[in-house]
Amino acid sequence: MNHLKAIIIGAGMGGLATGIALRQVGYQVEIFDRVKELRPAGAGISLWSNGVKVLNRLGLGKEIASIGGQMDRMQYFSQTGELLTDFSLAPLINTVGQRPYPVSRTDLQQMLLDAFGAKNVQLNAKLVAVEQTANEVTAIFEDGQRVTGDVLIGADGTHSTVRQYVLGYPTDRRYVGYVNWNGLVPISEDLAPKDSWAIYVGEHKRASMMPVGGDRFYFFFDVPLPKGTVSQPEQHQTELMDFFKGWAAPIQTLIQRLDPLRTNRVEIHDVDPLERLVKGRVVLLGDAAHSTAPDLGQGGCQAIEDSEVITRYLITTNISVEDALLRYEAERKDRTAGIVLKARKRSEMTHGKDPEKTQEWYQELKQEDGSNIMKAISNTILAGPMR
Amino acid sequence: MNHLKAIIIGAGMGGLATGIALRQVGYQVEIFDRVKELRPAGAGISLWSNGVKVLNRLGLGKEIASIGGQMDRMQYFSQTGELLTDFSLAPLINTVGQRPYPVSRTDLQQMLLDAFGAKNVQLNAKLVAVEQTANEVTAIFEDGQRVTGDVLIGADGTHSTVRQYVLGYPTDRRYVGYVNWNGLVPISEDLAPKDSWAIYVGEHKRASMMPVGGDRFYFFFDVPLPKGTVSQPEQHQTELMDFFKGWAAPIQTLIQRLDPLRTNRVEIHDVDPLERLVKGRVVLLGDAAHSTAPDLGQGGCQAIEDSEVITRYLITTNISVEDALLRYEAERKDRTAGIVLKARKRSEMTHGKDPEKTQEWYQELKQEDGSNIMKAISNTILAGPMR
Repeated sequence: MNHLKAIIIGAGMGGLATGIALRQVGYQVEIFDRVKELRPAGAGISLWSNGVKVLNRLGLGKEIASIGGQMDRMQYFSQTGELLTDFSLAPLINTVGQRPYPVSRTDLQQMLLDAFGAKNVQLNAKLVAVEQTANEVTAIFEDGQRVTGDVLIGADGTHSTVRQYVLGYPTDRRYVGYVNWNGLVPISEDLAPKDSWAIYVGEHKRASMMPVGGDRFYFFFDVPLPKGTVSQPEQHQTELMDFFKGWAAPIQTLIQRLDPLRTNRVEIHDVDPLERLVKGRVVLLGDAAHSTAPDLGQGGCQAIEDSEVITRYLITTNISVEDALLRYEAERKDRTAGIVLKARKRSEMTHGKDPEKTQEWYQELKQEDGSNIMKAISNTILAGPMR
Repeated sequence: MNHLKAIIIGAGMGGLATGIALRQVGYQVEIFDRVKELRPAGAGISLWSNGVKVLNRLGLGKEIASIGGQMDRMQYFSQTGELLTDFSLAPLINTVGQRPYPVSRTDLQQMLLDAFGAKNVQLNAKLVAVEQTANEVTAIFEDGQRVTGDVLIGADGTHSTVRQYVLGYPTDRRYVGYVNWNGLVPISEDLAPKDSWAIYVGEHKRASMMPVGGDRFYFFFDVPLPKGTVSQPEQHQTELMDFFKGWAAPIQTLIQRLDPLRTNRVEIHDVDPLERLVKGRVVLLGDAAHSTAPDLGQGGCQAIEDSEVITRYLITTNISVEDALLRYEAERKDRTAGIVLKARKRSEMTHGKDPEKTQEWYQELKQEDGSNIMKAISNTILAGPMR
């Protein structure tokens, strides 16, 4: 079924990766996005080996390595700076066959956009309706533009328009229970070792730094808070100073160094696993199909896995587009639902939903030699299509 | 790990498919074969959907469809021509997502050779030794030519030279217990329906026809015989007349029509599953790695699956060539051993190793509505990498 035409709604990670993959196998691909300017939602992302392997397959191995941080170790500290565990990630890399790459979201977005070709992405195109017949599908945009193709891929994120079309009803996003601040700072040994993912934990909160390309740390802070708290960008630094008062010196230094106006503040949401991902020639992918809490670091990786699997079925099976999409749904529905629910559970554990369990986890970290953590990560990776 | 150089020994189905796949992802590939002229071993082969899916992925979907036969049904007859079962293969195709294509081996070989480029295949190149260091591997040929690369793929068939290098000792081929005659005849309704795979069974023997491209039937006959029987090509017709005396009219017509000088006569062998498939930068693939009886129709398909899996690990993981090959071995060793042993078991069942079981099978065929046969085929296919 080569030489078909794919309409992709959404020029984020999942949409662009799918566009690159489908065009490599001969599809005509057009990508549309409602925004006037492409700006990724978060400052950074950890691409675990399953995501990196797909990018390798797309021929982007050198590019991802060049924007990725060198993350060789992982360290947990208590809020006071006591080292709880410190271990090499080499055994994990050996198990899964590929090192992970923490990257800046802007770099990743640019890399994918360059690979796909920015001129083939139409911005300022807001999808308002979808129509399909037995033979084709048409995307209708706010300005009246109609674009017809063989398959329409809804890669339009957690606030997806295509999702409502596929399901037939709106979807509620679910507040996970914590607020996340994230951004980038220059890499520096007084914050954390340059080759390590450092995580400080205490009071059901987290503060974390991981190296990304360009000699920067991608940092984030998590604080459990009721739904609906707001703060102005100028306040991001002062509220973090409050929330992390008394924490270890590197965390104080980090808060001093961050640029409050370039620090994102996000109430973390997820979406209950969807009933279906496909309606005829229309298919959901990435956050539109499975919005997850970031607690497993698998949100972006799952979008990239989606791109690999949907491309595989579209090009290797030949009954019909609809049939290929149902095969994608059958393979991806459980996999991604599992990730969403596991991330939610992990978030509850780390953020004190049951304070006793969170205390137990803090205690366990003191005994941890890395093997349990790495086993959990590799199990998550190897349960998917990129072994 | 793109832009490496692969040396492939053997320009058969597995070697060429691997060459095409690796070159598509940026490898430099050179293929060598000891023969002066490439001539496939058998007249035809059934490519089940797992093999076809890999070819689709290589961009050869249209080409394989054009040389493939239209096999919509499957029929079993008793030796006297009684119809035992007759069913549509549509449910199987719907389960696996891709129709099977019986093809002439010559057509398949030509298709793969055209896709790879015949000028990149060096014939008359007999491998005599392999040397490797930590950084490279060298193939040494009888005429003194030395070729160095990053990986050496032994796709040199059931009599593989590379296999002995990998294992460190010679391998015995094992006589499966029957002789197989095979060839091509013009398609004709007085032999079998043009869209059907027809199989006659009785006396522990089989006679079979399946449609291939070019309006031909690929036919084969199986007769259990002691090891070591021989016959001259001119005798192939007369010995088949003897072995199938009294069988139904279409079988007599088939024997009359076949060209004895173009009919292959083969003592069917397999090889016990190998202890390993890899030594450093050297890897076995196809019949060199797993010589199977043809009773599941999976010999060629497994070689093609090998090509997909080895390429996937070489391009998606990035620790080292040796590491990628060990991942290939870990994934393929059990899969292909399972096929070899299952085909052996099936061969014993159909060829009267325990005559009671063969009689039971003949009886079962009378009750068969196709669902058991198709379930067995789809299970074999879907247990592999091309779901």
